[in-house]
Amino acid sequence: MPDPAQHLPRVIIIGCGFGGLEAARALAGAPVAVTLVDKTNHHLFQPLLYQVATAGLSAPAIAAPARHLFRHQANVTTLLGDVVAIDAQARQVRLADGQTLPYDHLVVAAGATHSYFGRDDWARFAPGLKTLSDAFEIRRRVLLAFEAAEKEADAQRRAAWLTFVVIGGGPTGVEMAGTLAEIARRTLPGEFRHIDPAGARILLLEGGPRVLQAMPEDLSASAQRQLEKLGVEVRVASRVTAIDEHGLQVQPPADAPAYRIEARCVVWAAGVAASPLGRQLADATGATTDRAGRVVVEPDLSLPGHPDISVVGDLASAQSHLEGHEPRPVPGVSPAAKQMGRTAAANILHRLRGEPAQAFRYRDWGNLATIGRNSAVVDLWTPWRRIKFSGWLAWVFWLFAHIYFLIGFRNRIVVLIDWASAYWSEQRYARVVTGIDPGTRDG
Amino acid sequence: MPDPAQHLPRVIIIGCGFGGLEAARALAGAPVAVTLVDKTNHHLFQPLLYQVATAGLSAPAIAAPARHLFRHQANVTTLLGDVVAIDAQARQVRLADGQTLPYDHLVVAAGATHSYFGRDDWARFAPGLKTLSDAFEIRRRVLLAFEAAEKEADAQRRAAWLTFVVIGGGPTGVEMAGTLAEIARRTLPGEFRHIDPAGARILLLEGGPRVLQAMPEDLSASAQRQLEKLGVEVRVASRVTAIDEHGLQVQPPADAPAYRIEARCVVWAAGVAASPLGRQLADATGATTDRAGRVVVEPDLSLPGHPDISVVGDLASAQSHLEGHEPRPVPGVSPAAKQMGRTAAANILHRLRGEPAQAFRYRDWGNLATIGRNSAVVDLWTPWRRIKFSGWLAWVFWLFAHIYFLIGFRNRIVVLIDWASAYWSEQRYARVVTGIDPGTRDG
Repeated sequence: MPDPAQHLPRVIIIGCGFGGLEAARALAGAPVAVTLVDKTNHHLFQPLLYQVATAGLSAPAIAAPARHLFRHQANVTTLLGDVVAIDAQARQVRLADGQTLPYDHLVVAAGATHSYFGRDDWARFAPGLKTLSDAFEIRRRVLLAFEAAEKEADAQRRAAWLTFVVIGGGPTGVEMAGTLAEIARRTLPGEFRHIDPAGARILLLEGGPRVLQAMPEDLSASAQRQLEKLGVEVRVASRVTAIDEHGLQVQPPADAPAYRIEARCVVWAAGVAASPLGRQLADATGATTDRAGRVVVEPDLSLPGHPDISVVGDLASAQSHLEGHEPRPVPGVSPAAKQMGRTAAANILHRLRGEPAQAFRYRDWGNLATIGRNSAVVDLWTPWRRIKFSGWLAWVFWLFAHIYFLIGFRNRIVVLIDWASAYWSEQRYARVVTGIDPGTRDG
Repeated sequence: MPDPAQHLPRVIIIGCGFGGLEAARALAGAPVAVTLVDKTNHHLFQPLLYQVATAGLSAPAIAAPARHLFRHQANVTTLLGDVVAIDAQARQVRLADGQTLPYDHLVVAAGATHSYFGRDDWARFAPGLKTLSDAFEIRRRVLLAFEAAEKEADAQRRAAWLTFVVIGGGPTGVEMAGTLAEIARRTLPGEFRHIDPAGARILLLEGGPRVLQAMPEDLSASAQRQLEKLGVEVRVASRVTAIDEHGLQVQPPADAPAYRIEARCVVWAAGVAASPLGRQLADATGATTDRAGRVVVEPDLSLPGHPDISVVGDLASAQSHLEGHEPRPVPGVSPAAKQMGRTAAANILHRLRGEPAQAFRYRDWGNLATIGRNSAVVDLWTPWRRIKFSGWLAWVFWLFAHIYFLIGFRNRIVVLIDWASAYWSEQRYARVVTGIDPGTRDG
């Protein structure tokens, strides 16, 4: 069949995270043929991924098929594929299955993964949290640790099963630690006959001087107090120097002696590294990458000498260019990724019309992070004034902000019901572990 | 700590399917110490498992942690463990991790798995549907087949990706085939740019003379008509003689020549075999097993010469003993499993009180099966008369019966909302596939 789109400029978008999704949406109705390539079949609402890992939400509640999201946007073709190389000279991308796709404009939004700072051998002892598979793995480890403790006769080994360590005091680490404390103190008590889940230890280790370092100091302090109220032991300025199957080694601040924590369930929330595609792209175009592997982009998010290639989201090392201000680095958060996606799309249309591309300007609304039931911190930058608050009100604000931004009306309702039910019952309904048997699969 | 339960008679229940769960519940408040052992951490509402496999429901919607279900029943201890052997002389069960558990009374409710009739090599080409892991595997294959078709340039290979074969015309096969047809005809159209999902072929192969053989002939015929209306090609008296990665070989009725179907997604819904524990138990006790590996039990569900061991549910080859009637074989359906569980529990209490055990009497309420949206057949045996009906009313009856029996109030609401939403939108929200990357896990 003749394809009416074949004479239109071809736009390839790599990745359907926040950046790629917004870029594709911003091209709705435009005279371009968009191909959205992702190695999964779904857009993932990553800010709530920790809820899947802690059995509060099911996977479908925070993931929507990319194909479904664009069913009414006729100029978007969705493709399941893993981009392994970008050929900037030939203007084409290559998929893992050998297929090549030519483009006229390319938006690279391949995102980030977790980094073990060169210690990739730690990955199997301390899984990170970036994909749904990661979330299932953490869910399994958390729930099975309590099961193993229930069966363990030796007191010392039982204590190790009931010690949970979260490494990294950023938003994900704080959310994980707070939620683990709630599971131990509120969800599980009464269900075991040989152990008291409420006696579980939850430790949050942070290498820097405070948790939530993107927040102002008073909110960091508030977050730490709220964590401690939930029963989390927060240890700042504490670096992890070794991890194995049975625990980890910690270097505390100053000259205090290093010590060991016996723990069977360790979660990695410490490092973020850009997708390896960034390195490949830099090699292919002569662009530079920063220390985290992010590609340094021009003010308009394109690559030097390659106006047809833009990089957005967590893979981009970008500056915000607000009039009358010095350029400021853009943080790796979802609002920034979405805004970059829209700017990259707008610049494609500018170029098609022969107009100059616009510089990226990041509209920063502030920061928010949740700690647990009724606990959160909010740092809001309104056009009029800056508002900081914490506790219950901050939690309600966080809740509605996240539900509002969830993709798709249907999912919002489900998440709201799941949470309302979890709030009143203090239960977590997604406590399903599959693949316990060797030989069966996970879920 | 001293355990007040240690002087009570010890009851071990193996398996937390319908039979094991009901047995444990029926012992609520009784002066016994119950240990419920299962190799998963959840009770699975198996009648709706096909909905997870076809992306209509999330796993947590039909699975509840066994531990949570018994949190208020103080005489039940839940244990995550895989029973590998029963020692009827020493009166203990052995777990895969080497642990042994002594019992005074044992209820074996280990259930069934799918059987490939000696062709276990077919398992990787045609997965069956018994566990959540199975459901995720089928969900992945179905959704990825459409993705592969969208990318496939060769027409013949594309057709093979768009051919779905369900083997076995029992309730699960009928449900799977009907739902696959709905996905192809109603859910996916409009989302692809290179294929028309509505053109997918769905075949249902049944070796016997009709689908739903447990149903009266007129309802079987109605089910077949409803399937065909949905676009399913139903082929009865057709035996599968070979399966490989690219398709299968079919022997049609009479002397018609065998033929091949090119199909990349094949689902096995044909054979059921009892848990291997049945064979081990028979060897250990001198009991006999039937052709399907089920353990032949006494009228009171105990084993010959072993009144302390009962077998219930799909693992039992039992007879129903209604007064004034010949004993009749009990079918492998969930109401029968639940009733057997209750009888086994009651008989434990009878024996403790020195009373004679009661014979099992199966109260048969009839049969129901769904085919798809607005399509079902119901054969209801009320105390007054037998009622047969099909179509929309049967579907509504099926819907409410299943939601009513779902374990746990919270899940019922979620399932109801999921279905209401799916009904109006004709969408299926659980279309999430994880682990597409080699090296990551499933979900």
